Formats: sequence, C-alpha cells, structure tokens
Amino acid sequence: LVGMEKEQRDCEYKQHKAEGLLQELKMLKNKVVELEGEKSQYERKLKATKAEIMNLQQQLETKDAEIESLRNQMALRVPTQCDST
Amino acid sequence: LVGMEKEQRDCEYKQHKAEGLLQELKMLKNKVVELEGEKSQYERKLKATKAEIMNLQQQLETKDAEIESLRNQMALRVPTQCDST
Repeated sequence: LVGMEKEQRDCEYKQHKAEGLLQELKMLKNKVVELEGEKSQYERKLKATKAEIMNLQQQLETKDAEIESLRNQMALRVPTQCDST
Repeated sequence: LVGMEKEQRDCEYKQHKAEGLLQELKMLKNKVVELEGEKSQYERKLKATKAEIMNLQQQLETKDAEIESLRNQMALRVPTQCDST
C-alpha cells in the first residue's frame, strides 16, 4: 500500500510535468506558425526584389542601346566650326 | 485497492501519453531550428538582392549622365554633308 501511495505521488508529479510539456508544445506550435508566416513574407519580398532586378537590367539594356545609337550618330557628324551648306 | 490499481493504469496511460508529447516536442524543436535556418538564409538573400538593386540603380544613373553628355555633344555638331575646314 505504501508503495502504491508512492506511485500515486509519482503519478501526480508526472501529471504536473505533462502539463508543463503541453504548455511548451503550445508555445512551440505558435513559434512554428510565426516562423512560417515570416518565411512566406520573405518569399514574397525576395520574388519582388528579383522582379525589380530584372526590370532594372532591361532598363540598362535599353540605355546601352541608346548610347550605342547616339555614338553612331556622333560619328556621322562634325563639330560646328565649319559653315553648314 | 481496486481504485489504486485503476489509478496505476491511468498513470501508465498518462506516462505513455507524456512520451508521445516528448516525441512531438522534439519534432517541433527540430522544425523551429530548420525554420530559423531558412529565415537566416532569406535574410542574407534579401540583403544581397537589395545591394544588387542599389548597384543597378547607380549604373542607370551613370548611363543617364552619359546619354545627357552625348546629347549635349551632338547639339554642338552638324551632319558631315558640309566640307570640314
């Protein structure tokens, strides 16, 4: 009987410990949800910045073409020191 | 005594349940570590892409200045139809 009472006390202790585990589980589950949310945000942000990089690279190509074109036009011109006909 | 035996069975059941909780806790802790790692990776990637955007924007400014300069030079020139002196 004494042994059984001891077991009961052990059981109460374990019950108390299990409640602590449940609390910790709840906390960790919230943490996981929070981190998953942050991950989604990062994915969206990264996608947006990559799109912006593509856009800027296209703008650079356009400007390079413009510079090339202006240089070609320049090559066909001379300084205005001469009198135009 | 019968009641105590029942309590002991309950206790064993709870012990079994607690082991399940510990397993789940372990799993969630690993998940948190994994997500924290992914978060760090995203932070690094995002920082790198933002730096790239800054760099591309500077390149665009440089090219804009070059285009402006070429246009100004063009304005001082005339087509080569005239004879140069």
